[in-house]
Amino acid sequence: MGESERMLERAFKLIDKYLEEDRLPETPVVEYLPPEELKWKLDLELGEDGASVEELLAFLETYLRYGVRIGHVQFVNLLFGGFDEAAFLGDVFATLSNNQMHTYEVAPVATLIELALIAKMNSCIGFDGGEGIFCSGGSNGNLLGMLCARNRAFPDVKAGGFAGGEMPALFISDQAHYSFAKAANQLGIGTDNVVRIKADELGRMKPDELELEIERSLAAGRKPFFVGATAATTTLGAFDPLHEIADVVDKHGLWLHVDASWGGPVVLSEKHRHLLAGSERAHSLTWDAHKMMGTPLICTAFLTRDKGVLFRAVSAASADTEYLFHENDESAYNLGRISLQCGRRVDALKLWLMWKQQGDAGMAARVDRFFGLAGYATAIVEEHPKLELLARPQSIAVCFRYVPEGAVDIDDFNLRLRERLRRSGKSMINYSTLRGKLALRLSICNGAISEADLDTLFDNITRTAGELAAERG
Amino acid sequence: MGESERMLERAFKLIDKYLEEDRLPETPVVEYLPPEELKWKLDLELGEDGASVEELLAFLETYLRYGVRIGHVQFVNLLFGGFDEAAFLGDVFATLSNNQMHTYEVAPVATLIELALIAKMNSCIGFDGGEGIFCSGGSNGNLLGMLCARNRAFPDVKAGGFAGGEMPALFISDQAHYSFAKAANQLGIGTDNVVRIKADELGRMKPDELELEIERSLAAGRKPFFVGATAATTTLGAFDPLHEIADVVDKHGLWLHVDASWGGPVVLSEKHRHLLAGSERAHSLTWDAHKMMGTPLICTAFLTRDKGVLFRAVSAASADTEYLFHENDESAYNLGRISLQCGRRVDALKLWLMWKQQGDAGMAARVDRFFGLAGYATAIVEEHPKLELLARPQSIAVCFRYVPEGAVDIDDFNLRLRERLRRSGKSMINYSTLRGKLALRLSICNGAISEADLDTLFDNITRTAGELAAERG
Repeated sequence: MGESERMLERAFKLIDKYLEEDRLPETPVVEYLPPEELKWKLDLELGEDGASVEELLAFLETYLRYGVRIGHVQFVNLLFGGFDEAAFLGDVFATLSNNQMHTYEVAPVATLIELALIAKMNSCIGFDGGEGIFCSGGSNGNLLGMLCARNRAFPDVKAGGFAGGEMPALFISDQAHYSFAKAANQLGIGTDNVVRIKADELGRMKPDELELEIERSLAAGRKPFFVGATAATTTLGAFDPLHEIADVVDKHGLWLHVDASWGGPVVLSEKHRHLLAGSERAHSLTWDAHKMMGTPLICTAFLTRDKGVLFRAVSAASADTEYLFHENDESAYNLGRISLQCGRRVDALKLWLMWKQQGDAGMAARVDRFFGLAGYATAIVEEHPKLELLARPQSIAVCFRYVPEGAVDIDDFNLRLRERLRRSGKSMINYSTLRGKLALRLSICNGAISEADLDTLFDNITRTAGELAAERG
Repeated sequence: MGESERMLERAFKLIDKYLEEDRLPETPVVEYLPPEELKWKLDLELGEDGASVEELLAFLETYLRYGVRIGHVQFVNLLFGGFDEAAFLGDVFATLSNNQMHTYEVAPVATLIELALIAKMNSCIGFDGGEGIFCSGGSNGNLLGMLCARNRAFPDVKAGGFAGGEMPALFISDQAHYSFAKAANQLGIGTDNVVRIKADELGRMKPDELELEIERSLAAGRKPFFVGATAATTTLGAFDPLHEIADVVDKHGLWLHVDASWGGPVVLSEKHRHLLAGSERAHSLTWDAHKMMGTPLICTAFLTRDKGVLFRAVSAASADTEYLFHENDESAYNLGRISLQCGRRVDALKLWLMWKQQGDAGMAARVDRFFGLAGYATAIVEEHPKLELLARPQSIAVCFRYVPEGAVDIDDFNLRLRERLRRSGKSMINYSTLRGKLALRLSICNGAISEADLDTLFDNITRTAGELAAERG
């Protein structure tokens, strides 16, 4: 026991040290090693005998050392980043108490927190009589939306399975997340029955194209049932026009799901919530709090406009679950009944604690700040003679590239630039393909990033580009 | 910053205090409040303004106070329990660094740890050339098994969806987990196409009944494709006979999945691994490390005997994922390609750290200890004049009931007994229905439980029963 206490205490000191290092300018985003080298460096073997506390603590240090510093201000690589103490503690206490979300009986406080958050988030979206559940990620939230829709349009499938008849068709934009296609695979709908609607120059689904494709599917004898709109696409951060899409969806009596995994939190900002205008007309929505809001992974709410849809879509026969769900005064609070998971972590506490600390005002300011910084980054790109903006930013993603002098393969140059930058540990920025061009994509999701950090980022980019160009001679 | 540091430091002290309390005999398992009362006690509202560090810390204390103590030795309610420092720290450091499992790029060490664990667990199961992935829980692991099987038997469904033709049929025992039925719903197979095979007196699937039902399905023009065996059923802890089931499965060319969510770790024990004999003949297997092995939620490995099945079953079109998965020397390490999740927490670190500390020998001793304690509890039940054993235990679950004197509804009596015990905070034990009788189910998954704790548990049970009987007069 003495030794264990020492282990916890010493590990807590490692945490303090790690967080301090995050704030030092000389700390690299990653101390990069390629897989084979890193494997050689780590002793990952599990053998007959156990290891000492000393060895365990040393390993934890190594884990942090060669991991990626998501909290570093030069990490602008994913749709999330940063570090928040309250959210961190919420997750740590969830692990500590290890309450499990399937019944009130074994997660009393956590259940009430999750319900309070679902109500709060629903009211932000405009789902005033809705309900929802925390699930295993944005992909899973999109699957839940599609499953609810399938259950409405093809109510016999739950018990009977797909048995022929009309083939389903569903619609997303060509900028939508790949989880929709994965869900179509899982749900027995088939990825070929996913129709991709052209996006406009800014990355937004075109409602007239949607209408056209629905008509085309109907003419081909298929049964349209689901439209998946996106609120902040992965590459461009674009928001599909929900009102115009909802008009088409309503006309045809389809289900509208919004993948607001990334963009959901804009509803908290008076200035930017117009981007989600019309969300109240959707039937369901996915909102990741681990992206723009900054909790640790995973913190995804799946929200529905109406009550009961989730239960109808996912519930199991009560004969199978009597060992778990008991009928008593707590039954209405047993969230496992509307979840695809049986065992489930407490993901709500971290979000609740962070939100409580910041208040709606603090959360809104966070969103506004990100948009402001994206504007700042955009201006740098526009003013720099060698940087080219590849699309007008819609929110907090900025897509650009470096254009070197001379006859160079620009895509190849930018790829090399990005990889060198990443492996140097100076800055970590992602890339994607945009209309055939390789685009560097900066995404701003870290509450600690300042304008000076963006200056450093672009310095790192242009310096590394200069080095690369010089090497070519 | 000063305040934040104080917040972390003070929160860490709360953790120490909580763990100390866990060890005090007077600490209740739960300070029970019904939902409405608890809601009234908590201020869960999220408003415009933020809260102070003081308020946040006070809330965390409240969270722990009214939560359930999963680490308490009188918590024998679920298929998991207890607290392990190394595993706890593994989860805390996963949260701290917040690396994300979809690519090596953003989770270098964690990726190698997950691969090492998958290899280790596969070698325990006998999947020597296999692969696998950590997923979002036992239910999800069972779905993955069914999805891989669907993709083998109905390869056109991934792209084309179910379009009529032969109806699928799958087989599980009537003691199997409800996640199989939920997966059949999700996968478009239909819950009616789940055939439940009778279990024997001890809760094990009968292979001759399986054979019979497969023949019956074939005769009805359906296409059998999947058998889900269970290694430790939720109520009786029973292990289906894998060799005999595999004989039937092989004869018909079906897919054998083993739900070893609970029972998987018995392979670590020389004494008890015979319960999983034949596991190497399965095609896939689910193994929860957060149950018998004692990591915090969630820590589920989905294992396959052969390489490539996961990729074929779950992968998305590469055009959809180019923003995420880049082709380079790290590609082979990008686990997101074989995962249903996009964002995914590091769940492997906690298991690796715990296993490293204990070694194979320590893990095996843990399993053996649980079986020994289950035997001890069984003996108490058998020797006590008022306790009735409802089935011979197969592993670490003991099902029994209290038989009061006089003309009493025994089910009702045991239900009251259990509820009173739970709400008193003295002991928390679950119940289920077994052949029409209400059974109290004791499950031993906490490494800290001793024989003396079981004495206390049965003391609490029989005393409370005595009180109840006296009240009836």
